Amino acid sequence: MQEEVEAWLKGLQDAICTGLETLDGAARFREDTWKREGGGGGRSRIIESMDSGFIEKGGVNYSAVYGTTPDFLRKEVRQLKPDLPDSSTEIFFATGVSLVIHPYNPWVPIVHMNVRYFRLNEEVQWFGGGIDLTPVFVVEDDARYFHSQLKKVCDRHQPNYYPEFKKGADDYFYIRHRDETRGVGGIFFDKLTTAPGISMDDRFRFLREVGELFIPVYSEIVNRNRAHTVNADEKEWQLLRRGRYAEFNLVYDRGTRFGLETGGRTESILMSLPPLAKWTYDFQPEKNSGQEKTLAFLKKGIDWA
Amino acid sequence: MQEEVEAWLKGLQDAICTGLETLDGAARFREDTWKREGGGGGRSRIIESMDSGFIEKGGVNYSAVYGTTPDFLRKEVRQLKPDLPDSSTEIFFATGVSLVIHPYNPWVPIVHMNVRYFRLNEEVQWFGGGIDLTPVFVVEDDARYFHSQLKKVCDRHQPNYYPEFKKGADDYFYIRHRDETRGVGGIFFDKLTTAPGISMDDRFRFLREVGELFIPVYSEIVNRNRAHTVNADEKEWQLLRRGRYAEFNLVYDRGTRFGLETGGRTESILMSLPPLAKWTYDFQPEKNSGQEKTLAFLKKGIDWA
Repeated sequence: MQEEVEAWLKGLQDAICTGLETLDGAARFREDTWKREGGGGGRSRIIESMDSGFIEKGGVNYSAVYGTTPDFLRKEVRQLKPDLPDSSTEIFFATGVSLVIHPYNPWVPIVHMNVRYFRLNEEVQWFGGGIDLTPVFVVEDDARYFHSQLKKVCDRHQPNYYPEFKKGADDYFYIRHRDETRGVGGIFFDKLTTAPGISMDDRFRFLREVGELFIPVYSEIVNRNRAHTVNADEKEWQLLRRGRYAEFNLVYDRGTRFGLETGGRTESILMSLPPLAKWTYDFQPEKNSGQEKTLAFLKKGIDWA
Repeated sequence: MQEEVEAWLKGLQDAICTGLETLDGAARFREDTWKREGGGGGRSRIIESMDSGFIEKGGVNYSAVYGTTPDFLRKEVRQLKPDLPDSSTEIFFATGVSLVIHPYNPWVPIVHMNVRYFRLNEEVQWFGGGIDLTPVFVVEDDARYFHSQLKKVCDRHQPNYYPEFKKGADDYFYIRHRDETRGVGGIFFDKLTTAPGISMDDRFRFLREVGELFIPVYSEIVNRNRAHTVNADEKEWQLLRRGRYAEFNLVYDRGTRFGLETGGRTESILMSLPPLAKWTYDFQPEKNSGQEKTLAFLKKGIDWA
């Protein structure tokens, strides 16, 4: 299965980069390949546009790393499988594609997706992933469209997928010290392994459909909003919302903190940070403004689908 | 001692705000007072200038909080005093002044200072604090001046203060994932309690001299550099260096993480974040540029004094 997943992920990275270049119309990805001390490596693809496209900064990263299992990973595996014998020769393998896009136009939402596969020796393997949308201004129709497309994919597999994974995203993409969700959420899932009536092949089929949904769904949302006019207040709000994005990624995001703590490649991990961000002391939106309406939507538990 | 410390800290906040307003020449602090659920509160003083002054954004915060001791604080106290009896009625008290100044001109360094006092019931009390300088471009003469002034104060008290506390700052203000120090360091110390030949009054006298050093030393450094001409590359580098500052504060700074995790007032805690910051993928400075020279100075163990 590992090889099949790796091959699919590489192909997915290629397809998404091509799709985003087409959508952008101007910028091109550049690639950095890197090796990890201790095993594995990756290929980071970065796009930074100064042209007429919509992407200000983005990255689509593929990585496949392996090696002796760090303690915190062992603990995590043993929480899932308490009967696993303790072994000093445990080798972990982790592979995935991770992307973040920061558009110029504040009416085009920031987007993030991650699909991943983890294996420990022969005994444990799982899939994880997620996709979430971070609008600078929440456009309700777009949030509904985004969630209904995710729900459609989930519902083709298991009836509990969408409600569980939607709640997973609400809980995960949450900036506790602001009591704000990062955006309008999406789906987030982890440790999908075999279950009664569900094989790893079933899980993989689901993951593939999530990954392959990205380009069509994000293209629709980009095309709906990319020509929107922009004023100075809207740009200002974009910078503040990007500040929140940086706060989430640096304070809470497990992938970011895991990467930084285990000596991953810093520039690849932090490609998710916004090109430019702003912190103004105690910003208060005007009554009935789009900013205020957006804040009201940055809550858990909104039924968008 | 608690009341004496509180009175001094409030006076220090006043004196520093007045000193910074005079130095800036244009901007004025505004004050927000706040209360903490569970005990205590503070007064945040914020300065954001759009005028002819040198401060782009800054804050000088005083707080005094108390209440039932959270678990992680108990643990910390017991590491210092393992013989302390376990009690369910422990009350902690913590007070301090904390400041960060982000100047407009990239030739004027960012500065941070913190002086604090902690007490648990009647059994444990200590002082802590630090002051460090984060130049966008390292000016060697300024770094030497800064450290020699700190050393002078330290040396008036104990011969081991400067070497220990200078190393403390190198180790603390360190961005591990970049293998860079935040700036040129300064001094950092914690848990200063009684020791053979050193009373709490001695420690307090040292803390006072550190706090009172701030205005004269920073004024000298500001005045040396505030009229420096600035070009676009230098502004760009300032934004990238501020990105590093945000990374340090959100990923590593214990005060920030402690505050966010214990439900402190978010806007007061995050006043330390830069007004505007930038992340460019894999920025590489030109050979022999001021940017490259600065990076070479962002290392531990440089003997500035």
